[in-house]
Amino acid sequence: MVTTRRLMVIGGGEQKASEGCRAILEEVVAATEDRRLVVMTVASTLPVEGWEEYRDLFRELGVSDVRLVDVRQRTDAYDAPNVATLADGATCFLTGGDQLRITSQLGGSPVGRRLSELYRDGSVICGTSAGAAAMPDTMLIGGPGNRAADVSTVAMAPGMGLLSGLVLDSHFAERGRMGRILAAVAQNPSHLGIGIDEDTAIIVTTKRTGASFRVLGTGAVHVVDGTHIDHADFGDNLGDGVAVCNVVLHVLRDGDGFDLDERRPLARTRDRHEDTEQHARDHEKPRERRAAS
Amino acid sequence: MVTTRRLMVIGGGEQKASEGCRAILEEVVAATEDRRLVVMTVASTLPVEGWEEYRDLFRELGVSDVRLVDVRQRTDAYDAPNVATLADGATCFLTGGDQLRITSQLGGSPVGRRLSELYRDGSVICGTSAGAAAMPDTMLIGGPGNRAADVSTVAMAPGMGLLSGLVLDSHFAERGRMGRILAAVAQNPSHLGIGIDEDTAIIVTTKRTGASFRVLGTGAVHVVDGTHIDHADFGDNLGDGVAVCNVVLHVLRDGDGFDLDERRPLARTRDRHEDTEQHARDHEKPRERRAAS
Repeated sequence: MVTTRRLMVIGGGEQKASEGCRAILEEVVAATEDRRLVVMTVASTLPVEGWEEYRDLFRELGVSDVRLVDVRQRTDAYDAPNVATLADGATCFLTGGDQLRITSQLGGSPVGRRLSELYRDGSVICGTSAGAAAMPDTMLIGGPGNRAADVSTVAMAPGMGLLSGLVLDSHFAERGRMGRILAAVAQNPSHLGIGIDEDTAIIVTTKRTGASFRVLGTGAVHVVDGTHIDHADFGDNLGDGVAVCNVVLHVLRDGDGFDLDERRPLARTRDRHEDTEQHARDHEKPRERRAAS
Repeated sequence: MVTTRRLMVIGGGEQKASEGCRAILEEVVAATEDRRLVVMTVASTLPVEGWEEYRDLFRELGVSDVRLVDVRQRTDAYDAPNVATLADGATCFLTGGDQLRITSQLGGSPVGRRLSELYRDGSVICGTSAGAAAMPDTMLIGGPGNRAADVSTVAMAPGMGLLSGLVLDSHFAERGRMGRILAAVAQNPSHLGIGIDEDTAIIVTTKRTGASFRVLGTGAVHVVDGTHIDHADFGDNLGDGVAVCNVVLHVLRDGDGFDLDERRPLARTRDRHEDTEQHARDHEKPRERRAAS
């Protein structure tokens, strides 16, 4: 058992077209090095299409050993060849779809246990969209977008248990999910809420000394910290809105880091301004650098 | 000049159908007492329809003296009969549409000055949607919904100057506007950001001793307080996303109050649970009261 574990939690919609910057998929490839990359399409109702798309992408980006673990029903998760495909050291990539498909098909099965074992042994586990949302002990499975916090409409269920002490949401700004993550955090402020935009990921590193993440991609990561909540009111009835005071919010961007134990942002791990001249060439309206307030 | 001024700032989409609870429009009527209520449709490109709808609603709710100030072009804002319609003590109600129409047509005109004068003299000024957004010194006029904070796409302009030290946004949760209010607050954390949901209002009372508001309606009011921001990064180029740390967020509900000078929530001014039995009858799935955390 190694002491460093790594997850790559992607908010969905990562850049796939070769014309754009595929920083997130390239990071998956870099993490794989020259080992095996296993694509798991269990969340999807279109597993063939999902597999073919990612297989071609990862091959194009230089991975030679890309494999599929194809779980469409629970018996597939007991299939010995599927378990064997999850070879020592393999990076795993869980595609999007429905996070309940992931846990209902894999939970407690040999494939599910093997995935946890790989993670504990130092393999990088990557998930996008549903594959991301399913990672914590408790996962968000539903709730409306573009609506203020409301307990009755935020559904949660037991997740894959790869991350503790937080709830995750994907497609965050794009689907207006601040309300549902606030509702989840208000229900148990011991848990951080982390909302990840599309084409954006957090790379979570857990060591004996603590856990932290850094942000990669073009969108934002919203961290909702309920530690200092001094008033929370859920009303009397299902459907009543949540009132909650003194939530702390951080909006993090590519290169920013966050200490999950101390619950505080870390100094930048890369210079967001390093490619300013390239940006200036790429944009029609460059501007003077603004002073940080 | 009186010492107490009142604004009713409505997030748009207030309940109008008689089957629903029309608490917000009823509050406008209550504020009017037996005086005149002037509807101002300047924000709208459909002023006739807007006027007829609100005229009929306010009459149905018991206001006998409902008048229109019809400004469709700037010369209308210099029209003496329009100025005269804004009689002493009249409550004013600004309908929705485009906040830039309000300021571009009324700003610096006799009608615009008369409106400010009425407010200073104690008349209640109400605005919904664009009519709400236009009230502060600086108003939000545009910016995408469902997108994380991004300076380049949040447009602001000088507003009506009825409120200082804050920026307002309407249709808040419904249109996923957390990103744009965060961008506005990050640009100048001396200003509070206040996002008001549909069918929800804040009633702002300004006295010599200070300013506060209370919440009315079925949605939430999000207060974004940038006082404690310790890191803000706008990137180098227009279009770069905003990173910002340590924003404080409050989600307030019907009956909650907020002290605008101290920037802190106030004790509830009404009991949200007083009509629990009615709620229990109205909902199919009543539940036990949850403990506040």
